[in-house]
Amino acid sequence: MRLSRYFLPVLKENPAEAQIVSHRLMLRAGMIKQSSAGIYSWLPLGYKVLKNIEKIVHEEQVKAGHIPMLMPTLQSADLWRESGRYDDYGQEMLRIKDRHDRDMLYGPTNEELITDIFRSHVNSYKDLPLTLYHIQWKFRDEVRPRFGVMRGREFLMKDGYNFDLTKEDALHAYNRHLVTYLRTYERMGLQAIPMRADGGPIGGDYTHEFLVLAETGESEVFYDSEITDLKFGSRDIDFDSVEECQAVLEEFTSRYARTDETHDEAVFNEVPEERRRTARGIEVGQIFYFGTKYSEAMNATVVDNEGNKVPVHMGSHGIGVSRLLGAIIEASHDENGIIWPEGVTPFHCGIVNLKQGDAEADAACDALYKSLTALGLEPLYDDRNERAGGKFATMDLIGLPWRITVGPRGLKNGVVELTSRRTGESEELPPEQAVEKIAQIYASL
Amino acid sequence: MRLSRYFLPVLKENPAEAQIVSHRLMLRAGMIKQSSAGIYSWLPLGYKVLKNIEKIVHEEQVKAGHIPMLMPTLQSADLWRESGRYDDYGQEMLRIKDRHDRDMLYGPTNEELITDIFRSHVNSYKDLPLTLYHIQWKFRDEVRPRFGVMRGREFLMKDGYNFDLTKEDALHAYNRHLVTYLRTYERMGLQAIPMRADGGPIGGDYTHEFLVLAETGESEVFYDSEITDLKFGSRDIDFDSVEECQAVLEEFTSRYARTDETHDEAVFNEVPEERRRTARGIEVGQIFYFGTKYSEAMNATVVDNEGNKVPVHMGSHGIGVSRLLGAIIEASHDENGIIWPEGVTPFHCGIVNLKQGDAEADAACDALYKSLTALGLEPLYDDRNERAGGKFATMDLIGLPWRITVGPRGLKNGVVELTSRRTGESEELPPEQAVEKIAQIYASL
Repeated sequence: MRLSRYFLPVLKENPAEAQIVSHRLMLRAGMIKQSSAGIYSWLPLGYKVLKNIEKIVHEEQVKAGHIPMLMPTLQSADLWRESGRYDDYGQEMLRIKDRHDRDMLYGPTNEELITDIFRSHVNSYKDLPLTLYHIQWKFRDEVRPRFGVMRGREFLMKDGYNFDLTKEDALHAYNRHLVTYLRTYERMGLQAIPMRADGGPIGGDYTHEFLVLAETGESEVFYDSEITDLKFGSRDIDFDSVEECQAVLEEFTSRYARTDETHDEAVFNEVPEERRRTARGIEVGQIFYFGTKYSEAMNATVVDNEGNKVPVHMGSHGIGVSRLLGAIIEASHDENGIIWPEGVTPFHCGIVNLKQGDAEADAACDALYKSLTALGLEPLYDDRNERAGGKFATMDLIGLPWRITVGPRGLKNGVVELTSRRTGESEELPPEQAVEKIAQIYASL
Repeated sequence: MRLSRYFLPVLKENPAEAQIVSHRLMLRAGMIKQSSAGIYSWLPLGYKVLKNIEKIVHEEQVKAGHIPMLMPTLQSADLWRESGRYDDYGQEMLRIKDRHDRDMLYGPTNEELITDIFRSHVNSYKDLPLTLYHIQWKFRDEVRPRFGVMRGREFLMKDGYNFDLTKEDALHAYNRHLVTYLRTYERMGLQAIPMRADGGPIGGDYTHEFLVLAETGESEVFYDSEITDLKFGSRDIDFDSVEECQAVLEEFTSRYARTDETHDEAVFNEVPEERRRTARGIEVGQIFYFGTKYSEAMNATVVDNEGNKVPVHMGSHGIGVSRLLGAIIEASHDENGIIWPEGVTPFHCGIVNLKQGDAEADAACDALYKSLTALGLEPLYDDRNERAGGKFATMDLIGLPWRITVGPRGLKNGVVELTSRRTGESEELPPEQAVEKIAQIYASL
């Protein structure tokens, strides 16, 4: 993309309304624009990152055999009356009356709707196991929406639901989700730690939240420092293997890691003192096994191999897709702007032309642009008539991980400059080598 | 995908509520499930086609230099009061009050919101031309939602908005959209004819609707039969060239083609009698130049090169993404089910194992599955223990354009059967040749 043809409305000043750095940087980098309290338009740059995050979430779910679909944003209140949650859910549920005065709502989550789909179509244990998921906009009418997309009202979430014959099968589905989530967050450049979560009114031990460590996190977290040494990496997991998935769960959850909601000082004190850590974290996902709560309330049963009708065991598993943009920026920025991890960056690299209009510099930039594009990479070429300082500031602000700087002086020596946004380090090298290096970096992801 | 692990709840019986064939077939093929009147869940098969259609729409917009972004579903009523449409819009607009009693609405379209974004960030003619678009769910509270996704209440639409300095520039944007739409529909296997549309209260000649001919179409259409001979094909268009885009407009709109809303019997009668056609059509898109209507009402101006503040010239351009599934099925089906055009098919081909459990047949199917997958194709392998007749019926119903049938008798002779869903014709050939043929078909798209 040529910047002269793009829509990238960066702001010079810090917006007064933004209290945390991710919100500030998303506004300044022209990624989002508030349309009303807690509701945002995703400007082109923000939209690109959102799609990249969505793509990673999809890919990792599909690898595990989970099936994508899509439920609507608006739901009838009837199903929520059936589950008993219509009255339980407070003012955070946006209630709507249509023109025929029917009670509708903007879905804050989808347990009822998916259970209704399941019970309409599945009757036999032979059709299990089944995990369906979707990535769809949700609405929670927060009293005080704040922190930009971190606590918005209209937000994008991946929510998946497993249906299994037995508790054992459902716990395997739970473990599968844990595995996919570890890999999902790592691909986004995040370390998200699974922490024992509060089961809430449903109770039970089978729920973990995934938290990204960041100073601005809403939750206080307590953990054994050994846990931050764990990496999931690119392991090849057989998602049908109960043992393999269970082993990952044990590896990643056996050390102490809890939020303030489940923290137990006595247990924490058993961790050697030098490994005890207290920090703040941002919740970016949660997995949950809740047994037959909804299947019993809503009569979602299958016939088992002995001919008995039994309620299915279910769980739900969520990833905060739009919230992740904020979390990634909270975890990866400096005083000049965002630093995108390669896995989610909106453009693979920037090209800065130090002397726009200079025939040689323009030709070199065009050639770089073509070479990168031919390799399937997407560069953002700053081809505006701007001072070099202004171009660098924009590139730093929007946070592309790699920048190629092209100027007449370097070209005389046959080189361009390749700069890492993260380290700030630069090296001079011939244009074709810069292209090759960038291609290698992305090929290795 | 192995069918035994998929969620494809096909129905044997014709659902009573479905009046038209696309609605009936989408329900029967397990593509959608109604969740409340005019609101649908997209089951896995339907979701896949929806995503394929979305992808084509995106690709063709991006080729023309139009920039993707995303606006939210819920909007504040304030902007609509500013444009004057809040009161004009009738009961089709879903009006909502949030917990603070603020007036909100579920966007039926986005002229106001995009104009607000534009005026907040663009001030100079140097930032023009600019065309922004998104694909987002909309809501229109129809009195009588019907025909499945053809006239639903919650529906997915691509809407794009151009901002230009002059009427001339805006008409070039109009022509660009016409070009992209022609190619978009052709890639989906549709012939969509641009027909002169009614400008409505805004007036003006600059609006065309795109109609797909189908017996169940809601509109009566009148056209010169020469128009159905036109093909856009794979022309390489320079979207910056005013002349090239204008020439396409002229080629595709110079013959008589109108809906009942703009039909003029006297003009129609000038078409030679043997070329006059009357038929029914389904509207699948519309392009519209409306000048400064919104920019004046909402004060969206730029400073021109003489320093004058002038309102920008705008247009809006829509494609009914979810509706297109219905339109494609209306245009392409037979008594046994759907016939997907290759461009949008949910799976590239089906594999039917005539003797599940037979070691040789199973191995041959597995090998086919692997070969196709290795070529980037996605087969649907019916690996269930079902009668051949049931498997064929399911494949015909869900409409994959190609089917490979594998059975012990053929394997003895080293062949499988490749069948075209459209023609019903079969040929026997070695498995590797069947794979190659399918790969060629999709590579040529």
